[in-house]
Amino acid sequence: MARPQIVTLTTDFGLADPYAGALKGVLLDVFPEVRIVDITHAVQAFDVFDGALAISESYSYFPSGTVHMVVVDPGVGSERRPILATIGEHYFVAPDNGVLSLVYERAERELAGSVLVREITSTHYFRQPVSSTFHGRDVFAPVAANLAKGVDSQKFGDEITDYVRFAAPKPKVAPDQSLRGVVLKIDRFGNLVTNIRASDAPQLLGENPPPCRIKAGTQEITDICTHYAQGTPGKPFGIFGSMGYLEISINRGTAAKLLGIGKGAEVALSLEGAAAAGSL
Amino acid sequence: MARPQIVTLTTDFGLADPYAGALKGVLLDVFPEVRIVDITHAVQAFDVFDGALAISESYSYFPSGTVHMVVVDPGVGSERRPILATIGEHYFVAPDNGVLSLVYERAERELAGSVLVREITSTHYFRQPVSSTFHGRDVFAPVAANLAKGVDSQKFGDEITDYVRFAAPKPKVAPDQSLRGVVLKIDRFGNLVTNIRASDAPQLLGENPPPCRIKAGTQEITDICTHYAQGTPGKPFGIFGSMGYLEISINRGTAAKLLGIGKGAEVALSLEGAAAAGSL
Amino acid sequence: MARPQIVTLTTDFGLADPYAGALKGVLLDVFPEVRIVDITHAVQAFDVFDGALAISESYSYFPSGTVHMVVVDPGVGSERRPILATIGEHYFVAPDNGVLSLVYERAERELAGSVLVREITSTHYFRQPVSSTFHGRDVFAPVAANLAKGVDSQKFGDEITDYVRFAAPKPKVAPDQSLRGVVLKIDRFGNLVTNIRASDAPQLLGENPPPCRIKAGTQEITDICTHYAQGTPGKPFGIFGSMGYLEISINRGTAAKLLGIGKGAEVALSLEGAAAAGSL
Repeated sequence: MARPQIVTLTTDFGLADPYAGALKGVLLDVFPEVRIVDITHAVQAFDVFDGALAISESYSYFPSGTVHMVVVDPGVGSERRPILATIGEHYFVAPDNGVLSLVYERAERELAGSVLVREITSTHYFRQPVSSTFHGRDVFAPVAANLAKGVDSQKFGDEITDYVRFAAPKPKVAPDQSLRGVVLKIDRFGNLVTNIRASDAPQLLGENPPPCRIKAGTQEITDICTHYAQGTPGKPFGIFGSMGYLEISINRGTAAKLLGIGKGAEVALSLEGAAAAGSL
Repeated sequence: MARPQIVTLTTDFGLADPYAGALKGVLLDVFPEVRIVDITHAVQAFDVFDGALAISESYSYFPSGTVHMVVVDPGVGSERRPILATIGEHYFVAPDNGVLSLVYERAERELAGSVLVREITSTHYFRQPVSSTFHGRDVFAPVAANLAKGVDSQKFGDEITDYVRFAAPKPKVAPDQSLRGVVLKIDRFGNLVTNIRASDAPQLLGENPPPCRIKAGTQEITDICTHYAQGTPGKPFGIFGSMGYLEISINRGTAAKLLGIGKGAEVALSLEGAAAAGSL
Repeated sequence: MARPQIVTLTTDFGLADPYAGALKGVLLDVFPEVRIVDITHAVQAFDVFDGALAISESYSYFPSGTVHMVVVDPGVGSERRPILATIGEHYFVAPDNGVLSLVYERAERELAGSVLVREITSTHYFRQPVSSTFHGRDVFAPVAANLAKGVDSQKFGDEITDYVRFAAPKPKVAPDQSLRGVVLKIDRFGNLVTNIRASDAPQLLGENPPPCRIKAGTQEITDICTHYAQGTPGKPFGIFGSMGYLEISINRGTAAKLLGIGKGAEVALSLEGAAAAGSL
């Protein structure tokens, strides 16, 4: 696989502490030509699911051969393993705590399953001495820099199959035939991003979509828009956003505030007509 | 125009969501050598004026041939056009919603008007399928990457002259001969940046400046400083800051807090003496 | 010294204003090949000590020949001098206000004192006209870019020895034989980073460490962990973190909140046994 010498960073380090800077220093020290791209350092502290979402929604846009460092690592220093995953045309280095779960899932859905995970055991690549509190700097950065440099992934350790993964919450059909999903994330614009995908309710994207009803918090929403500016000011609507998920949004407003709900809240989508409900 | 292969980013995406990451991925995928520079992703959400200010106060420091992506785009997916502006030695790709207004104004003031705006219509450069919610990723990023790569700007579409622009609020002379401006922005240090320029009150910068009085919020300010550390601790003063605007500041303090005013608040500047007032 | 053409940035500019963008533009305009790496722009506004900590804890990971810009500069435009320090294999450009104090200290501790400081007096390298409010853009950026480009450090001015430095607060032995330190910083995870180093209490890192007691805020802490996940949920513990300082932490929690203390608070460490106390 050609290497564009890019390492992306997805961490929960924030930008106010010297952690991201130290990690970048090690990357450049090991491989001075590396090109570092911040995806985000604002994953919620210790929140493996939030990190999983951040990387799964952005990695696929990068060129083949990109190395992605994903460091949300509350178990640093414990027995949890460091892993190197080769997924489609991308490399990932991360703790084996499930933070790549949504990347695995996406690969299986879209790439028919080309996931290969290795435990990183070649400690001679590590920065010595390895601290027990900052493997981003001492383990993942030197491995990522060497990968970006062209070192073969096989050199870092053997394949494992018992890597940790969790299942993303999937929407379920309730007895009343509505589809029950949850809010995965509130984005910067206050959009409530749910786990309901377009493929869960394809009728809504066809011509003549059936009337629908979304219950979320105190609101009942009946409008589906295709772009944000369509929304009536102050009135929430549903929209399939750029991540492919159903979002609840307000044109130039903050849906999360108006609806008074947050991450994890339930959202129920009902479509009118038996055929529609049947296909859910 | 030589291309230094730089693309700058000015957006309201924030840094906690995967949007900026996805956009950077597309830039690198289209043009792996591109050098991405974040100007800011912290433009206030949906605030076209705030975005206009961010880009107009920073683009001119970059080398000739730099491509600037400015994505503050509440109308994404609607009829608003995507545009490519060539202004002096810089390229801009942005939605046609006025976000380049202050760049146009600056160019006319400082470069005698070399503004050329094209509607981007060459859809074969776009990432397909084009979403209706994220043109930063699907339209602006591939166009910017191709520009940085050296594609001629004419290839993206024809010139238009009816592009959207708004006028920045200008200070006005009141009946009492004071100059009435407004607060454009509060910066990170709590400085209140007004729309009054040095050229609006040149006497203040000459030798023996006349006594002056600035009314802002509950305060009446009579000190003009040339650098922040001159200020008496706890006492607000006026200063022409690095953007060329009159600011109200406090030495190591937060003027915005002390004065209890924010963006849009009125600021009145009075100079003593008829000559001074006359020239306003 | 070989130059990897890297300039790192450590400032208190934040990311919402056009200041960091303008500074990056100047770096690229002077030296288009420069590779800019953000260490942090979130140093607390005007807080020279916070800046000193940020740079001293991250610079050493970068390759030899890296240029570090450190711009926390409340005295900009006053008589304070701009300096260029060569420390070990690294260059630093900064205001002479003590912001490099902890770098000097670290160099003396770890490199046996190879610190050489020059006053930057070669004004022909500056961006003209030099503003009195933004030397990051007009003085430090062009000097840093020229250094990264390979200009000899001697060209920027003569050596000085009376540069400003402050002493970092050191832990002291109290009459009761406890070691009294202070909280230097609260990091993103809520860890309280103190100024007590492993070398101040080496017994704790040896085999069979003596029982110890840390008093901080309302809590008395008796657990010392080697990694965060060891901690009992909800119960604070001490740990020597990645910066080499004693931290007070909670597994997946925010120690700063639980203990109700902040920056500058006193922390007392007592070791059991005369020998232990004696060695403090």
